[in-house]
Amino acid sequence: MRRVSVLGSTGSVGVSTLDILAHAEAAGEGIEVVALTANGNVDLLAEQARRWRAKVAVVADPSRYEALKAQLAGSGVDVAAGEEAVAEAAARPADWVMSSIVGVAGLRPTLAAARTGALIALANKESIVCAGPTLLAEIKAAGGALVPVDSEHSAIFQSLGGLDARRAARLILTSSGGPFRTWTRDAMGGVTVAQAVAHPNFAMGAKISVDSAQMMNKGLEIIEAAYLFETPEERIDVLVHPEQIIHSMVELIDGSSIAQLGPPDMRGPIACAWAWPDRLAWPAPSLNLAALGRLTFHAPDPERFPALNLARQALRLGGGAPAALNAANEVAVAAFLAGRIGFLEIAAIVGETLEAMERSGELKSNGGGLEAAFAVHARAHAVAADLAARPAMAMGGA
Amino acid sequence: MRRVSVLGSTGSVGVSTLDILAHAEAAGEGIEVVALTANGNVDLLAEQARRWRAKVAVVADPSRYEALKAQLAGSGVDVAAGEEAVAEAAARPADWVMSSIVGVAGLRPTLAAARTGALIALANKESIVCAGPTLLAEIKAAGGALVPVDSEHSAIFQSLGGLDARRAARLILTSSGGPFRTWTRDAMGGVTVAQAVAHPNFAMGAKISVDSAQMMNKGLEIIEAAYLFETPEERIDVLVHPEQIIHSMVELIDGSSIAQLGPPDMRGPIACAWAWPDRLAWPAPSLNLAALGRLTFHAPDPERFPALNLARQALRLGGGAPAALNAANEVAVAAFLAGRIGFLEIAAIVGETLEAMERSGELKSNGGGLEAAFAVHARAHAVAADLAARPAMAMGGA
Repeated sequence: MRRVSVLGSTGSVGVSTLDILAHAEAAGEGIEVVALTANGNVDLLAEQARRWRAKVAVVADPSRYEALKAQLAGSGVDVAAGEEAVAEAAARPADWVMSSIVGVAGLRPTLAAARTGALIALANKESIVCAGPTLLAEIKAAGGALVPVDSEHSAIFQSLGGLDARRAARLILTSSGGPFRTWTRDAMGGVTVAQAVAHPNFAMGAKISVDSAQMMNKGLEIIEAAYLFETPEERIDVLVHPEQIIHSMVELIDGSSIAQLGPPDMRGPIACAWAWPDRLAWPAPSLNLAALGRLTFHAPDPERFPALNLARQALRLGGGAPAALNAANEVAVAAFLAGRIGFLEIAAIVGETLEAMERSGELKSNGGGLEAAFAVHARAHAVAADLAARPAMAMGGA
Repeated sequence: MRRVSVLGSTGSVGVSTLDILAHAEAAGEGIEVVALTANGNVDLLAEQARRWRAKVAVVADPSRYEALKAQLAGSGVDVAAGEEAVAEAAARPADWVMSSIVGVAGLRPTLAAARTGALIALANKESIVCAGPTLLAEIKAAGGALVPVDSEHSAIFQSLGGLDARRAARLILTSSGGPFRTWTRDAMGGVTVAQAVAHPNFAMGAKISVDSAQMMNKGLEIIEAAYLFETPEERIDVLVHPEQIIHSMVELIDGSSIAQLGPPDMRGPIACAWAWPDRLAWPAPSLNLAALGRLTFHAPDPERFPALNLARQALRLGGGAPAALNAANEVAVAAFLAGRIGFLEIAAIVGETLEAMERSGELKSNGGGLEAAFAVHARAHAVAADLAARPAMAMGGA
């Protein structure tokens, strides 16, 4: 009997996680759901909590407390609300915890879960980007483990197959290249919001789509990979692979490269994190390379996609720089989506935020703990917001 | 200090093995060479034996005994000759044995090495095709292990990464497709010896080149994979991949596919077999997918390449059928190389040999041991030789 919590159970990763758990249960595995948490979707949260007889269901938005309580009346499921309650639910003893809350809101609950010694299935990028060393130290101290759920990092994890990452000469993150893969830099200056959010391969949220379009998602993934696999950024490559069949790969010190492939389906990495080091049979889509016919590859262009080098710069700066990069990007993408800045200004603002905070010594002040990460996050938000409000930016100039 | 023997040390695999051992030694590993054996190249054998201070050097061709003895006079290396002496040398206690003798001559020495409990790095295909269950049972009984060195099976082994092969839904052997990949069956009827031995990717011996041209190498590899990974042939696919960068792959039961890739270099699988489950750093060629640009794939055509289904048929027949297939193919390829039969007759003779021996009950008589395998091998040689001598065949007719 495994005790399971799903933090962020109503998002796409959370729903996929419960789908995989249902397959595991159908295969005879004993599953006891401890906590399910959601931001605000109380209808789905209540349905999930009843289906799984969760011990507790928590909605982060306190204004939805009464609605959730009403829906779970008589169910035997405890009900709570608020960010503090989400972190408390995450701290309940469990064996396996899916961390799939979106954004920096995931940091505190993920760290709370890490302290229980549970295996953390990590989908929340911000936990590792903004507080990677802290999170990993807590997991180690508690005797737990971490399995990444992001498709690229799951692919690297699977490709290593238990081998120490120091046996990898290079980690190779693949990327679709985004919708502007073949555009000139001049053309990218005129990108509209509608163009930036029309990602060719996945239905995504607007923020994630813009990150993909500027390859900042890949920049953040370089940071994640550096922390998760304790690998310096010089040994982390990015390879553009528009078909997105090879999800990432490793080149080992003996010249052998191992890759993980499959049709895009986020349930794959989740099933892997659930069963690791074993494998769970579920009706997964099958890969047919003969039907696909070809896979293509090219090197990314750092001139057109400066986000890649910004991420490398943040890693080299260390301290709070990755958290600052992430926060500045949030602000700049929001400004772009609001029509206040041009597409190429996103990376410009991120770069200027890093430079300004580096000059003022505000990146070094990060002691590595969660509070320091939040302080850097808040400060970078303010710096980036000021930059986005400049007249030149507001006019969409370079 | 690891005790090492290399059976077939002067062939291309043997030479590559000693190259990898030199890298391991340079990296500080302690290596004590027990036995080196060769078919007839006493010059190279003697040089290797001196370099590695081998305990014994054995030449299979008894007529080369005096020449070897003269070359190693005063070296402290024991010298022996003859097939029996090769098997005796293979039986000496060792920790790691490379089995790289070519052809059925490798069976007895490989089995002798298996009985010592050594890790067997297996490059000799015939050991597993003709006596797979016997070899695996001996290795198990002696508490040893087997790591395949054939690039395809090494790729599957590496892709499994220690996972039980029962967790694989499919093993996928990749194939260059050979030089006639895009030819019509009619055109293949007129293939000349010169065309058949001009393999595009590797410098190979004539026999191996013809096997590659008719995809019988892949048929034999299906048989090897079936035994090595205890997987029924229905779950072993062949995928044509002309670039030969993905060396083979597995699709696991959770839909995740793991592939092993690299520039073609037989030292890669040897280095893997040496260091497994760790990895050995050596100056290996690096894979650059961005420079390659694309990898292509298509399904093989069983009509034009009947060898694939013949191998599957041999596996379904079981008993001595794989050994009979291998022997009949040896005879038919030799007849083709001698200009006595046409290219398409090779597979026809193999198929007819299997059918004739199945009808006469001679495939069932294989008790599974080595002597039974040799008996089937000899009988299939005779049956196939009779078929190759038929007038219709001699005229190159279908």
